[in-house]
Amino acid sequence: MKYLSYARGEQEPTWGVLVDGVVHDLGPTGLALAPTLKAAIADGVVPVADGAWAGAPTASEDDITFLPVIGDPGKVICIGVNYVSHQNETGRTGQTVPTVFTRFADTQMGHLAPAVKPSVTHYYDYEGEVALVIGKDAYKVSEADAFDFVAGYGIYNDFTARDWQRATTQWIPGKNFPDSGAFGPYFVPAADIDDLDSMKLETRVNGEVRQSATLADLYFSIPQLLAHVTAFTRLNAGDVVVTGTPGGVGFFMEPQGLLDEGDVVEVEVTNLGILRNTVVDEK
Amino acid sequence: MKYLSYARGEQEPTWGVLVDGVVHDLGPTGLALAPTLKAAIADGVVPVADGAWAGAPTASEDDITFLPVIGDPGKVICIGVNYVSHQNETGRTGQTVPTVFTRFADTQMGHLAPAVKPSVTHYYDYEGEVALVIGKDAYKVSEADAFDFVAGYGIYNDFTARDWQRATTQWIPGKNFPDSGAFGPYFVPAADIDDLDSMKLETRVNGEVRQSATLADLYFSIPQLLAHVTAFTRLNAGDVVVTGTPGGVGFFMEPQGLLDEGDVVEVEVTNLGILRNTVVDEK
Repeated sequence: MKYLSYARGEQEPTWGVLVDGVVHDLGPTGLALAPTLKAAIADGVVPVADGAWAGAPTASEDDITFLPVIGDPGKVICIGVNYVSHQNETGRTGQTVPTVFTRFADTQMGHLAPAVKPSVTHYYDYEGEVALVIGKDAYKVSEADAFDFVAGYGIYNDFTARDWQRATTQWIPGKNFPDSGAFGPYFVPAADIDDLDSMKLETRVNGEVRQSATLADLYFSIPQLLAHVTAFTRLNAGDVVVTGTPGGVGFFMEPQGLLDEGDVVEVEVTNLGILRNTVVDEK
Repeated sequence: MKYLSYARGEQEPTWGVLVDGVVHDLGPTGLALAPTLKAAIADGVVPVADGAWAGAPTASEDDITFLPVIGDPGKVICIGVNYVSHQNETGRTGQTVPTVFTRFADTQMGHLAPAVKPSVTHYYDYEGEVALVIGKDAYKVSEADAFDFVAGYGIYNDFTARDWQRATTQWIPGKNFPDSGAFGPYFVPAADIDDLDSMKLETRVNGEVRQSATLADLYFSIPQLLAHVTAFTRLNAGDVVVTGTPGGVGFFMEPQGLLDEGDVVEVEVTNLGILRNTVVDEK
């Protein structure tokens, strides 16, 4: 089952579930099972029982505005250089612990929303990634228990201003421009995923495949990531951990394959759908 | 005038103003001028008019628990290596743009609260700093206008687990352990500060002076910092920008002068008071 956060026209944001291609409104403008998808996850409302959507207002995916899957995460934790293919292209090899940086929640946008290329960057790039959503308070979690704290998964595109990322040792500025953290289209509960390792991630720019990997290629596994992150900070329900991007980013292509206005970037992940955003220049 | 966030006994958190050594309660348990000091700054309630505290419940500073000056900032932006003396000791010289990292709000504690040394670090260190609090929405601010967006100042001690900071290229883990971001004791409105540059920052460990600088020694000035930060992210009222630490941190002393249980760390800044925290081992 796929869940999503969205709005219809001028209505307030809501959330719902996709059943047989139809969006059923379970949020504030519908059955009001919880105010947000984050709250629904935190309160155990999601996954919903079969048929829980009966009587809900419905919509077509064509008639909604997709919002970031979790619009109000307390923390967005991002993992850097977590595929060998990306370690090699960046020259950042030999990791012994995961590399962690952060995004502010106000950098996020949804599926089909524009990826706004800042006027101050000359190096705007994509990073297709798998994100996980935390289901309950997680602190000092062991690797063995880590999956108990994962509510489910979605797709992330960690759009990056490379010149602002690389201007100093710390990457925060290049990772925190507005409308740069694409998160969507769906939240898929962990229980609905049979074989995480075999899930394939593919990033395409104007249809050309740029990144391709499976989750088995993650250098630090999801349990290793959660053990490391929760060793220093408490994660709460609805927090997001973005697990890193494979090789194939535009900055390291020869010649470089960076993004310009009009470029359509798709990130497709088995079971999770396709996240699509079009680059627009900042006005 | 000095403002502070605090609690009395089991009462809910409140905020107030220090007048002639007496704390006057202007928050939820007192005159209720605003729910929090952050809201009071955002709404222009602070600075209060002379005598606005008349009739407020009062307390001695000895009878309150100091809380982080701003307990609920949307963003805590930290600036790295922003004094030449610290650039030299770290070997991180030649900056052309400010180095930016972030703290989560849940890392903060107040004046006199314990600085909790994580059980997983062997290198716990202090960083005395001046923090500024944003007074209104700030985005793409020019250096010329920057001070219009500064509501006031406070003292910060950016306690750092050096081994976790330096384990990878990104510093976030070493800067985000619980009870590591000391922020207090007071918020002092910008209007009350005559000569920012001459303000002296001094950090002492068990009475021994470790760091000493004036704000004139900042490598990137406050206007330069705000212009840089607001070029990539929108700051809102109550957000905090921590401006960096001078040379003299324990990690680079010979022999090293790192922190152990029982060490008392004081950061004193002209006009802003003394922020004092005692190191305790994580239990």
